[in-house]
Amino acid sequence: MRATVMYGAGDVRIENVPDPSIIERTDAIMRVVRACICGSDLWPYTSMAPSETGQSMGHEAVGVVEDIGADVRTVKPGDVVVMPFAFSDGTCEFCHKGLQTACVHVGFFGNNGINGAQAEALRIPLADGTLFRLPVGEEDALMPSLLTLSDVMGTGHHAALAAKVAPGKSVAVVGDGAVGLCGVIAAKRLGAEQIIIMGRHADRIALAKEFGATDIVSERGAEAVARVKVLTGGYGVHSVLECVGLDQSVETAIAIARPGGAVGRVGVPQHEAIPSARPSFYGNITIGGGPAPVRAYIDELLLDVLEGRIDPGRVFDRVIGLDEVPDGYRAMNDREAIKVMVNPS
Amino acid sequence: MRATVMYGAGDVRIENVPDPSIIERTDAIMRVVRACICGSDLWPYTSMAPSETGQSMGHEAVGVVEDIGADVRTVKPGDVVVMPFAFSDGTCEFCHKGLQTACVHVGFFGNNGINGAQAEALRIPLADGTLFRLPVGEEDALMPSLLTLSDVMGTGHHAALAAKVAPGKSVAVVGDGAVGLCGVIAAKRLGAEQIIIMGRHADRIALAKEFGATDIVSERGAEAVARVKVLTGGYGVHSVLECVGLDQSVETAIAIARPGGAVGRVGVPQHEAIPSARPSFYGNITIGGGPAPVRAYIDELLLDVLEGRIDPGRVFDRVIGLDEVPDGYRAMNDREAIKVMVNPS
Repeated sequence: MRATVMYGAGDVRIENVPDPSIIERTDAIMRVVRACICGSDLWPYTSMAPSETGQSMGHEAVGVVEDIGADVRTVKPGDVVVMPFAFSDGTCEFCHKGLQTACVHVGFFGNNGINGAQAEALRIPLADGTLFRLPVGEEDALMPSLLTLSDVMGTGHHAALAAKVAPGKSVAVVGDGAVGLCGVIAAKRLGAEQIIIMGRHADRIALAKEFGATDIVSERGAEAVARVKVLTGGYGVHSVLECVGLDQSVETAIAIARPGGAVGRVGVPQHEAIPSARPSFYGNITIGGGPAPVRAYIDELLLDVLEGRIDPGRVFDRVIGLDEVPDGYRAMNDREAIKVMVNPS
Repeated sequence: MRATVMYGAGDVRIENVPDPSIIERTDAIMRVVRACICGSDLWPYTSMAPSETGQSMGHEAVGVVEDIGADVRTVKPGDVVVMPFAFSDGTCEFCHKGLQTACVHVGFFGNNGINGAQAEALRIPLADGTLFRLPVGEEDALMPSLLTLSDVMGTGHHAALAAKVAPGKSVAVVGDGAVGLCGVIAAKRLGAEQIIIMGRHADRIALAKEFGATDIVSERGAEAVARVKVLTGGYGVHSVLECVGLDQSVETAIAIARPGGAVGRVGVPQHEAIPSARPSFYGNITIGGGPAPVRAYIDELLLDVLEGRIDPGRVFDRVIGLDEVPDGYRAMNDREAIKVMVNPS
């Protein structure tokens, strides 16, 4: 079968690789119906050291179960399923608490020898704990939004929860990528009154406004902070969704939170230390977040997708086949596309 | 009157200074009944650059109101009161939410030209919002515990809240100073099942055990982390109270928190950036805390002091007069005393 392998910064290839097969009795084999390219895939795309063996890519997908191991109970061949970006056993104490990304058996697709989803098919470890069966066919019109439940919509929701978004609160979203845009949806869905999107790409800003953003801040650094203060009566926002992961974005996130406010981090940190130890301390600002347990959120978010209350699939503004995946990386990295969906068939 | 002035690292002097007087109509003048030396006073004691004008010291006190400005309504001469380490107006939106340390008119005693409490008397700005009237006389036997409501007991309680301590949880307290010891009291009071005190001073550890600590970890760094993991089934604790403020202590605090756990910071940060950006992210560990709004907590904690359920005043193991304050700093800095109480009369 064909799959995406990255060999270094800017070097993404589509290759023929062995078909996946059941290894453990808890595995399933999933044919990929739709996959996509993630903003976090752009970190290796711009920085990965050359590798002879390469890195299998992709961690977001909706697919159809093709085969299951002897111990799999909750999905069967033919089921249409969401594949969260992390696999988890569904039985440990962290899974029971809804923090599947800290499962004692957790793993991440496209990492540490586990194949990625920008491929025709892949092996799903711990299928019972990982896959979520969908009540739709594989060509359902809602497929783009259902696909976001594998990562970006759940991640935006996680940022909003970590930032303690609640009815009537003021919210700022740092980053106008797909996660930031889903963060706008999540903030609105949780009842935020004011939602400030911080970004500077016209297409993304336009979508953010349709998703519910009430204010736009296109400045950066100190000017962005000053602008948010002006928009919030001088104090800053109650909740900040940090959807970038850079030193400056986290510094800005902390600076625009009002005293007693909270920052929800979902941008994968590209730094060793969290900046602004003193401002965050003196402001009693809570810093939370991390890899989103999207598996835990599917139940709740799926209902809103199925009933049309949210439409996060609109973050996809390009659909490509597998062969075009290398150009899809380039397009996202050049900010030519917000998020690229891959149809491997 | 006599007051404590610090002129540089190790240079603490008792001097004659002008008596305080009403400046604003919202001021009160308070005679100090008991003050004390704070762990945070040891930061300038070990690092302050030489100063010609000096720094007025002390931010914790119980006193008697001697005079009030024309607009003061809630306290009157003769009232015995707790003076929280910060003054606040009691009327702004942050005060109403119980975050008086972010009051729009906040100030800190012994800072920015506001006199300190290691003195015979001092001016209290915003007396109505700041002072808390006590239902006892000035020689009440509970005075040591009442004095802790001005800072360390409220600060330990704040750390416990920020660390999300709750019934049945496992807790670690990093730092065995007076705040850490009060953190043990706070954790037990909030129902923690396991309370690990991390420290290595025999007298403090003994007191921690009497306050409710169930386990002692005297190792540091990686060894301390390993030991806490052993004590908690391999995962770390739900809640960490960070009562030091150094890079290494915060790094340890994050490392011993279990996935999904929380660190409550009350040690004044001595660093620019919070270490362990990635481990805290990947563990979905929440980092909260800051200057405690002790004014908000007096109501609740006072009842427990008055009814004998908590006895935080036991952190004081030395009582001195004003003239002995310089030696009191030395004794705390040498870890000869846990916390020194000052009786200026």
